[in-house]
Amino acid sequence: MTMMNQRVLLTARPSGIPQAEHFTIATAPVPEPGDGEFLVRNCYLGVEPAQRGWASAVANYSQPVPLGSPMRGFGAGVVIASRHEDAKVGDRLVGLFGWQSHALSRGDDVINRIEGREHKLSAYLGVLGISGITAYFGLLDIGRPKAGETVLVSTAAGAVGSAVGQIARLKGCRTIGIAGGPVKAAICRDEFRFDEALDYKAAGFEERLAAACGAGVDVYYDNTSGRISDAVLAHLNVGARVVICGTASVASWDPWPQGPRVERRLLVKRASMAGFLVTDYAARYAEAIAQLSRWVASGELRYREEVLDGIESAPDAIAGLYRGENLGRRVIRLCDESEVAAGRA
Amino acid sequence: MTMMNQRVLLTARPSGIPQAEHFTIATAPVPEPGDGEFLVRNCYLGVEPAQRGWASAVANYSQPVPLGSPMRGFGAGVVIASRHEDAKVGDRLVGLFGWQSHALSRGDDVINRIEGREHKLSAYLGVLGISGITAYFGLLDIGRPKAGETVLVSTAAGAVGSAVGQIARLKGCRTIGIAGGPVKAAICRDEFRFDEALDYKAAGFEERLAAACGAGVDVYYDNTSGRISDAVLAHLNVGARVVICGTASVASWDPWPQGPRVERRLLVKRASMAGFLVTDYAARYAEAIAQLSRWVASGELRYREEVLDGIESAPDAIAGLYRGENLGRRVIRLCDESEVAAGRA
Repeated sequence: MTMMNQRVLLTARPSGIPQAEHFTIATAPVPEPGDGEFLVRNCYLGVEPAQRGWASAVANYSQPVPLGSPMRGFGAGVVIASRHEDAKVGDRLVGLFGWQSHALSRGDDVINRIEGREHKLSAYLGVLGISGITAYFGLLDIGRPKAGETVLVSTAAGAVGSAVGQIARLKGCRTIGIAGGPVKAAICRDEFRFDEALDYKAAGFEERLAAACGAGVDVYYDNTSGRISDAVLAHLNVGARVVICGTASVASWDPWPQGPRVERRLLVKRASMAGFLVTDYAARYAEAIAQLSRWVASGELRYREEVLDGIESAPDAIAGLYRGENLGRRVIRLCDESEVAAGRA
Repeated sequence: MTMMNQRVLLTARPSGIPQAEHFTIATAPVPEPGDGEFLVRNCYLGVEPAQRGWASAVANYSQPVPLGSPMRGFGAGVVIASRHEDAKVGDRLVGLFGWQSHALSRGDDVINRIEGREHKLSAYLGVLGISGITAYFGLLDIGRPKAGETVLVSTAAGAVGSAVGQIARLKGCRTIGIAGGPVKAAICRDEFRFDEALDYKAAGFEERLAAACGAGVDVYYDNTSGRISDAVLAHLNVGARVVICGTASVASWDPWPQGPRVERRLLVKRASMAGFLVTDYAARYAEAIAQLSRWVASGELRYREEVLDGIESAPDAIAGLYRGENLGRRVIRLCDESEVAAGRA
């Protein structure tokens, strides 16, 4: 019996946030690895805010996913066949394997070879994967927080934001989180230990923000853009650093949205704003993963995940992120490692 | 006979660009230096775009000039009386002496003590003063141009912009200047040796900009904000640096103007935008002045100045800058050094 590859194909080009209708689930025979290739069975797929950009044809940092191809995305899985000298059957890998059950790889899309067993596989898609790495380098390399400074994070209950807040706390900073809704704000405070957490959907947000930012903001880790950023930028301290990591609150960049001009804010405060893409740090991922793993093991870095079951949940999963419905890093479970080991997946 | 101090007082608070009607010229007796003070006779006053901000009550980096006080501004002049141990009669100084003929100082507002005689006094208000220093640190410290990169400057025919372009050229960069009108564009090309110069007022500006920026922009030294910046930001290269030095094209920040959001531009290109105030570099002015003086002496750094005659030209002088009417660094001549030396001024 031919083994089948279940694939989530991008079949229509979204102009804004990809919706279920832009994807089609289709099957194809699982390919055989050629020389220098290996086959990965994905156990988990990651659901990223960044996938919006990857699916879009608008100004971007990568080529848009071609129509008819599997959606670009991260997977965590196990090597089940190999003709590559550095990959052997049973290796646990995380990589940009695409939204499909089986991926052929030459190794250049691998971001981590998982050695230990102390953390669960899905965590390597989140806090020990691209979300945690994004938080780590964006905050430490671009934000450069110093002990005693105030670090403010938007989407603070999310996979990146919650790690940013906790790493800032570990560095001795006061942390303010902004999240959508009272439940997420409470999670920020109680679980992720932000000093302050604000619900941007509640009335009086700007006033409560002003009160929370009494001492000004030294680092703003921005995952949203939009009116949250407009409110935060009024509270920058002299020399503040704004890390532009995402633009979750802007539904579409076509037509290009308007907002209050930032130039005078930056000038008056000698502040900086810098775009950040984690892929520029690929050569240093291992350093981040090692440190993040230690923090998770010691309990100093907490994370939440939300597991959707089955590839059928993929088409609507990105849209759901932008609806703000997830409480934790969203991943899609395709199978368990044990099933792969037993040859049942 | 009591010597009189002619002063340009700020007597009304402008909401945007200060106009002649916001100032009043008034006289007062010249004060006597007390212990630790000295008296400077200003020969030249500088006219700065930044004076708009100094006169404004809107979000700023310095306290607004109090109503009824002399306008804050740079002067170049000669010490004519001193009870300060570091200042002696005849010393030639540049400082934030205010728009007045005579200034009492304790030395903390001095930015340069001029030693040699190879450059004219007025140059120390421009290319060898705050304009040149602004160009020097803004470009080299914030813009960090590398040989072979493309550096684009707005208000390129102005005192800061023309120095930025020439310093970038000295560092081996390709330079593009943007200026208002064909005369200024020609000056950029012919006198300041920009590789390309564009008149933003001419039809088809965006298209000609796109053609000139074929290889992308690595450093954008922004003196304007507004639609010029909006056009330039579409051409940033990966890793580009935007130096926010001024916002000349924005008539007023009250109400706060809107523009295309920059976050996605910065994110996609991993570009940075940083506000820059030259006063943060006060401890390093001497280093800049020394280098700028060598470049001017060797002919590698050219400058233009426009001399207005008499303090009566002061009230309208800032508004004139924003009307774009000056062709060169604008200074106001009050008297010659020789007149001061002869006791005639």
